[in-house]
Amino acid sequence: MAAQVIVLNGGSSSGKSGIARCLQAVLPDPWLAFGVDTLIDAMPASMRASDAGIEFAPDGEVIVGAEFRSLEAAWIEGVAAMARAGAGVIVDEVFLGGAASQQRWQKALGGLDVRWVGVRCEGGVAAAREVARGDRITGMAVSQADVVHQGVVYDLEVDTTHTEPMQCARIIAASLR
Amino acid sequence: MAAQVIVLNGGSSSGKSGIARCLQAVLPDPWLAFGVDTLIDAMPASMRASDAGIEFAPDGEVIVGAEFRSLEAAWIEGVAAMARAGAGVIVDEVFLGGAASQQRWQKALGGLDVRWVGVRCEGGVAAAREVARGDRITGMAVSQADVVHQGVVYDLEVDTTHTEPMQCARIIAASLR
Amino acid sequence: MAAQVIVLNGGSSSGKSGIARCLQAVLPDPWLAFGVDTLIDAMPASMRASDAGIEFAPDGEVIVGAEFRSLEAAWIEGVAAMARAGAGVIVDEVFLGGAASQQRWQKALGGLDVRWVGVRCEGGVAAAREVARGDRITGMAVSQADVVHQGVVYDLEVDTTHTEPMQCARIIAASLR
Amino acid sequence: MAAQVIVLNGGSSSGKSGIARCLQAVLPDPWLAFGVDTLIDAMPASMRASDAGIEFAPDGEVIVGAEFRSLEAAWIEGVAAMARAGAGVIVDEVFLGGAASQQRWQKALGGLDVRWVGVRCEGGVAAAREVARGDRITGMAVSQADVVHQGVVYDLEVDTTHTEPMQCARIIAASLR
Repeated sequence: MAAQVIVLNGGSSSGKSGIARCLQAVLPDPWLAFGVDTLIDAMPASMRASDAGIEFAPDGEVIVGAEFRSLEAAWIEGVAAMARAGAGVIVDEVFLGGAASQQRWQKALGGLDVRWVGVRCEGGVAAAREVARGDRITGMAVSQADVVHQGVVYDLEVDTTHTEPMQCARIIAASLR
Repeated sequence: MAAQVIVLNGGSSSGKSGIARCLQAVLPDPWLAFGVDTLIDAMPASMRASDAGIEFAPDGEVIVGAEFRSLEAAWIEGVAAMARAGAGVIVDEVFLGGAASQQRWQKALGGLDVRWVGVRCEGGVAAAREVARGDRITGMAVSQADVVHQGVVYDLEVDTTHTEPMQCARIIAASLR
Repeated sequence: MAAQVIVLNGGSSSGKSGIARCLQAVLPDPWLAFGVDTLIDAMPASMRASDAGIEFAPDGEVIVGAEFRSLEAAWIEGVAAMARAGAGVIVDEVFLGGAASQQRWQKALGGLDVRWVGVRCEGGVAAAREVARGDRITGMAVSQADVVHQGVVYDLEVDTTHTEPMQCARIIAASLR
Repeated sequence: MAAQVIVLNGGSSSGKSGIARCLQAVLPDPWLAFGVDTLIDAMPASMRASDAGIEFAPDGEVIVGAEFRSLEAAWIEGVAAMARAGAGVIVDEVFLGGAASQQRWQKALGGLDVRWVGVRCEGGVAAAREVARGDRITGMAVSQADVVHQGVVYDLEVDTTHTEPMQCARIIAASLR
């Protein structure tokens, strides 16, 4: 059976979105790609800076509230339904809760063929890329680099520290065959 | 039963996204809001200018291909699943096919409490706002202003020609009670 | 002599940028248009949240430091030089310091034919549009609505409360002849 | 005398903007940074797809017209004036005309201490990064990779093929002392 969902998990500025776009370019069929930003953009503006929603601390730490979790759960169910309806779906995620975050997705994706891909990048390199991008809160890259992988189980891991996004995408695509 | 899905349908630059954001601000519970751009951004870049995907003609007309339709169908199923999972969802749509487009959504949203809202705007006013926004292909506003409403059935219609997005949102929110 | 610089001054979400884009569309010659965001985007990221640079308080107030002023002064000289080199230039500004802000520009634009245009919008309406846009810090519209006009002298004033950006642009363009 | 202007020249997706942002972060004083996109965004929308303005051919080639050149000349004079007014300015440019493009800047920057930096990247690597970014017209990276350096004279060259933007920025910053 062909893979139906590819979950890319890694810290901020680890290169997940670039890999997702390259995967869309190299995979033979058209896949949908969603990032954690898709969900955040869909939430009410008030939830981006409130106790109920998501908060970006000055040091780059991300704090998530109960109402965020509730909307996120519905979002995850929706993504699973898209795959069940026949679309290949690439999910670009930041498992702030490590294994607990993965379990939320595993539960919703039950019965689907999912490939779990860890996207690693040395904290110092990710932090420098965060500066180069200029659109992220400084500190997120370092604070997330390791914590998002704690206890997470992967089918495959790639490391963007010395490997280009396109090369990582080719490795992932080859593993699907 | 409380409404679970609000579908805002209108042409480009008619003010749908603004109304969606205002709805998120005035509704008592947190709602997710997705636009047609959410889906387009999720598609492979190659589909944005190909026979299989979506094409923006120089006069602003939008042409959609078979693979686009396939991914769109999965997307619509996903949005329906989010509402079934308990999230209120606002959908900001452009029914290029009029009644046929509405039927695609109606089929997927079966069993849910959906409010269909027509967002009107005089073509000339929408065209001028398209220029003011500066991020849209000139001509989309006029070419879509009427065609998107052909044969579509609404619970409620608002007109942004002389009414602010926030006022439209309040009218829609009041109708949900 | 033809006007060489048009300065649009108004609070956040008063509609200045939309008017600027419409002016570019209706004026017979090509004009350059710059906003206060052009300058902010050109500054080091570190200045967007520091004592030396610019700070957005939670209530939407904007606080500006000494190093910001220094780079701003050079920016203003540069914009004046573009007009002296023959380009028509539209400047979309927020005179947080009222008359003092205008004097900074007046000094740099000496000898050029400048049209000062006040862009008014009722605070409540601007605040609602701020919500509809969704990309601004809530509160800026109200906190800036009046203060930016204090002591400022205009050749012309427009009010977007009930008038579309394109219509405002036509009024301004007509006044240039 | 301290450097007053740093001109980074390289093809699309060669990494110039990332280097510019890293330079702003590592240089001891605050510098302004402008890209070729700053100028394009300032132009009338109509010039982005017209004979008089700038045109992006389907293969990624960029064609520039007479009115574009006229506004560009004024822009360059303005940037020079900012440096003369005391601001350090980083310019991120694409010398589509090679040596002829450099001469346009050299003429305007006369009397200023300018550092000319070539930003190289192997065409194949730049093309893959163009796919990963997802916001550029496919083909620009390859079509510009070599042509922008033809006949251009540099104080320093960096190559992002195997070197991170931050490391390139540190090399450039060290050369200024």
